Amino acid sequence: MKDIAELSGVSIATVSRVLNNNGRFSEETKEKVLKVIEETGYQINYSAKTLRMNKSFSIGILVPDITNLFFANVVEQIEEILFDKGYSTIICNTARDAKKEKAYLSVLVSKLIDGLIIISGADDFEFEHQSAKKEIPYVCIDREPKDKDRTIFISSNHYQGAFEATENLIANGVKHPAIVLHKKSSSSSKERFSGFKDALKKNNIDFSNEENTLFFHTNKQENKTLLKNFVNDHPDTDGLFTVNDNIGLDIILFLKELNIDVPKDIKIIGFDNVPTCEYSNPTLSSIKQDTEKIAKKAVSSLIKLIDGQTEDKGKIYLLPVQLIERESSKLQ
Amino acid sequence: MKDIAELSGVSIATVSRVLNNNGRFSEETKEKVLKVIEETGYQINYSAKTLRMNKSFSIGILVPDITNLFFANVVEQIEEILFDKGYSTIICNTARDAKKEKAYLSVLVSKLIDGLIIISGADDFEFEHQSAKKEIPYVCIDREPKDKDRTIFISSNHYQGAFEATENLIANGVKHPAIVLHKKSSSSSKERFSGFKDALKKNNIDFSNEENTLFFHTNKQENKTLLKNFVNDHPDTDGLFTVNDNIGLDIILFLKELNIDVPKDIKIIGFDNVPTCEYSNPTLSSIKQDTEKIAKKAVSSLIKLIDGQTEDKGKIYLLPVQLIERESSKLQ
Repeated sequence: MKDIAELSGVSIATVSRVLNNNGRFSEETKEKVLKVIEETGYQINYSAKTLRMNKSFSIGILVPDITNLFFANVVEQIEEILFDKGYSTIICNTARDAKKEKAYLSVLVSKLIDGLIIISGADDFEFEHQSAKKEIPYVCIDREPKDKDRTIFISSNHYQGAFEATENLIANGVKHPAIVLHKKSSSSSKERFSGFKDALKKNNIDFSNEENTLFFHTNKQENKTLLKNFVNDHPDTDGLFTVNDNIGLDIILFLKELNIDVPKDIKIIGFDNVPTCEYSNPTLSSIKQDTEKIAKKAVSSLIKLIDGQTEDKGKIYLLPVQLIERESSKLQ
Repeated sequence: MKDIAELSGVSIATVSRVLNNNGRFSEETKEKVLKVIEETGYQINYSAKTLRMNKSFSIGILVPDITNLFFANVVEQIEEILFDKGYSTIICNTARDAKKEKAYLSVLVSKLIDGLIIISGADDFEFEHQSAKKEIPYVCIDREPKDKDRTIFISSNHYQGAFEATENLIANGVKHPAIVLHKKSSSSSKERFSGFKDALKKNNIDFSNEENTLFFHTNKQENKTLLKNFVNDHPDTDGLFTVNDNIGLDIILFLKELNIDVPKDIKIIGFDNVPTCEYSNPTLSSIKQDTEKIAKKAVSSLIKLIDGQTEDKGKIYLLPVQLIERESSKLQ
């Protein structure tokens, strides 16, 4: 501060006032001080830029679970694109906890972010703007916003993915498909459930909760028992669509213990295309989401909103997904 | 602001001065305004708390790669412990890029964090405190700080893990072990390299870079060729210690294509104990780091520093690791 004062020929108090932006200085003085600050290095440069443009050049991301590789990949790619555009990314992990999410929203707002990216979550997303000093632009990925007109919604076409996976199972000879999912589901797994049911309908297979649905818990040992009981009660089951790869990978191990062969006896297709799909035995077929496109679309949409271009507000972008066929769903 | 002014019986300008903490108001006025602010909800409550205690109750984390499950797990657990203690966690992903790391350090400082946790990275960590307005306490995980006296260093005992893995291979009959690692290595992989070499020494196995070291690149296809050439040039190789599980998992697939049986012909032990180890065929033996202990120690150390308890400064905590034996290293 002392050096900056000397270099710009003003008092230390004036430099402090400029840095705190509290108004008791002339435009000319401000310019002089900011120029010196900018010349003395990046970190203060950053503050100076913020003061000058009334922007912080930082974007907040709310993510439900960074240990989920799909989310981690999306976040990583968003960060990369934003950094190239001069924005820094601040990530907060909400652990799928509504209270935590609310707290982190407040934190991010208090950290003066320019915009916000919301990734997934259990319920529709609602941003209580009245608590923020100014309206903060935001976009939602894989999670429906409550206030659709104020934001842009970007999502993989989960319905299409589930529909294609189920039709692929049927095309490969599956007569009695079931879906495996969690009770407490996100908006994207609800879409996947719909896609599964509609594929059955289209192929004239009757759907019943009893015969075509298996709900998993979070405990692995418990799930093993649930699966065992399900295949005992429904021995005709010859294909499983699992709403995510983690469920599918566990089932491959469970079925091995039950001496049920995958894909000969039961074919499996998962969702998300996590790296482990390539290492399991058999390798797991899965639906791949285009994380790169999701990241690009989220960033470009948000930056438009930040720049005051509001013509995309209310838009929904559904990005296509792709079936990656591996051993677990192969026709024998 | 208007409501707060009305409720606390002062002018809007005074509320603004209190919020910006610029000093031109009495303690009594400040108390009155803060009380009203605290009563009107969490987000402003948060700012009020910050002003009152001169603390932001937020902690920054610099992580090199959130798509690495070991890092993601550590971060997730740190967040959980911190949140329970009333702190929010702000995560920045540096993508193993020194420039980015510097930029994010500046961002975090400008966001008024109370403390900083640095996870891993290529070089020793150096925090240029002169650029920060006040000294920000920090701790380092898996990365040696340059200025050891100013911080606390927490790390798994990578040396011990590598030593035990290598001795286990030898105990299971391996006569010609090799280590597989990346050229550009972190301080933790350097430790792992030392552990490997010392285990060879203790067991009277000569070490040479030519015969006992295989350097991998980042490209999978290239690595397949590198491995193929290595086993051709050194057909005696019967055990591999890979510095991380990702390398070990790829090698299992590569060796399958080369019709080399794991563990009969070549035994493998990895490092990190990522979930995929349980899904591969054969399952991959690995060294497990105690992420929970790492997270707990990092948080308790940092909070001590923040609270002004400096007696632990300069300390190094090396946490024990554990060999998880699976099929890939089994005695035949």
